[in-house]
Amino acid sequence: MSEKKKTTIILFSGDYDKAMAAYIIANGAAAYDHDVTIFHTFWGLNALRKENHVPVKKGFMEKMFGKMMPRGADKMGLSKMNYLGMGPKMIKNVIKKHNAMPLPQLVEMAQEQDIKLLACTMTMDLLGLQKEELLDNIEYGGVAAYIGESEEGNITLFI
Amino acid sequence: MSEKKKTTIILFSGDYDKAMAAYIIANGAAAYDHDVTIFHTFWGLNALRKENHVPVKKGFMEKMFGKMMPRGADKMGLSKMNYLGMGPKMIKNVIKKHNAMPLPQLVEMAQEQDIKLLACTMTMDLLGLQKEELLDNIEYGGVAAYIGESEEGNITLFI
Amino acid sequence: MSEKKKTTIILFSGDYDKAMAAYIIANGAAAYDHDVTIFHTFWGLNALRKENHVPVKKGFMEKMFGKMMPRGADKMGLSKMNYLGMGPKMIKNVIKKHNAMPLPQLVEMAQEQDIKLLACTMTMDLLGLQKEELLDNIEYGGVAAYIGESEEGNITLFI
Repeated sequence: MSEKKKTTIILFSGDYDKAMAAYIIANGAAAYDHDVTIFHTFWGLNALRKENHVPVKKGFMEKMFGKMMPRGADKMGLSKMNYLGMGPKMIKNVIKKHNAMPLPQLVEMAQEQDIKLLACTMTMDLLGLQKEELLDNIEYGGVAAYIGESEEGNITLFI
Repeated sequence: MSEKKKTTIILFSGDYDKAMAAYIIANGAAAYDHDVTIFHTFWGLNALRKENHVPVKKGFMEKMFGKMMPRGADKMGLSKMNYLGMGPKMIKNVIKKHNAMPLPQLVEMAQEQDIKLLACTMTMDLLGLQKEELLDNIEYGGVAAYIGESEEGNITLFI
Repeated sequence: MSEKKKTTIILFSGDYDKAMAAYIIANGAAAYDHDVTIFHTFWGLNALRKENHVPVKKGFMEKMFGKMMPRGADKMGLSKMNYLGMGPKMIKNVIKKHNAMPLPQLVEMAQEQDIKLLACTMTMDLLGLQKEELLDNIEYGGVAAYIGESEEGNITLFI
C-alpha cells in the first residue's frame, strides 16, 4: 500500500532562471513518479500568463500591474545579470546550443506529465490578473489549497 | 495520539512581498491547526523591528546597518518593481482596495494565533540588532533552535 | 533502528549572504547528526569555484559567463545593500569582529563534516563550468540525484 511521494513547490519568483529551476525540479520529480504541485503566487503567476494580450476589464491599478509585468514565461527576466535583457538572451542561446528546454516548453511538459499547476486566487486578485489571461487547464485556489497539498509532502520548496 | 502537523519557515528576505507571503502561509497553516514557527534571520529580522527608534548603544558598523535597514514591516521594499518606492505603495493600495491584510497586521495575527516568532541571535549580533529594538513576545535562538523545530516538520520553507 | 535525519538544500543563489545562510544551516544540521546534501545549481555553483583562474577550453558564451560570474565564495555579492561592493565588505568586517565564520571557511567546514556537496551537471553545462574549475572532493549529478537525496528528507530548502 505504498503511497506516491509528493513534491510541492511554491513559485513566488517572476525570474526566468528561478522559474526554470522550479519547472526542472517539478518535471524531474514527476519523472520519478511523485505527485507534483506548483502553486503560483505573486510574480510567479506571470509564468502562467498567455503570451497574447487578452482584453478584460480592469481598474487603473490592475492595468498598470498588467503592463509592468511580463506576459508569459518567455518574457521573464533573470534574477542575476539581467543587463538590459542581455542575460535572458544569453541563457536562451546556451539553452538552444545545449539542447536544453526553454521555459515555455518546460511548462508544456509539466502539463503533459499531469503536474498540478495551481494559481493563487488571492494574489491574482491583488495583481488584477483574470482567469482569461492565464493558460488553460490550470487550477485555482488559495493558501488552504496549498496547505492541503503540502502537508503530506516529501519535498516542499519555496522558489 | 495523532500529532499536530508542523510548518517551519525561515524568513531570510527583507522584501515586503516575500515577508507577506511568509506570513500568509504561516497564518494559513496555523488556521489548519499546524504548529508554526517563523525563524527570522538576516534581513528577515527587519519584519520584527519596532517602528519607533529605540535608543541603544551601538558601534559604528552596527549603527550603519541600523540606519540602512528598514525599521519594521511597514517600511520594507518590494523584491520586484520597487521603482523608487512606488511598488510598495501600489501593493499597499491594492491590499486596501481588496480588503487584504497589510504586513504589520499579518504579524499581529500571527502572534494572536500563537505562531512562534523566533529571531536568529547570531545574525542579530552580526547586524547589531538588540532585543529592545524588536517586537515584544518573540523568542530568541540560533540555528540549533531552528533545526530542533524543523526536523519533525511537514512543510519546511526558506523565503 | 532509527534512521538518521536528512537535510537537503538546493543552493540556487549566488549571493554571499544567502550562501552563508545555506552553509550555516547545513553545518548546523550536520552537527545535529543529520545527513546533509547541498545541491548547487545555477549561480549557486559559484560558491564551489576555485579562486584562481583555471585554464580550460571554452566557447564564447561560456567564456563570457565565466568572466561575469564571481570566482569562488569569497567574491560573491550581497542580495541586499550591495552598494558597489561596500555591503560584502561590511558583512565581512562584522563577521571578523564577531568571530563568525566567513563563507570559504563554512565551505571547508562542510567538507570536514562530510556534507555532500553536489554540483548540478546540467547547469554546469549551461554556464560552461568545467570540473577542473570547481573544488576537489565534490560530487556531480543532475536533478535525479537531487530527488533521490531529498525524497526521504526531513528538511528540504531552496535557497
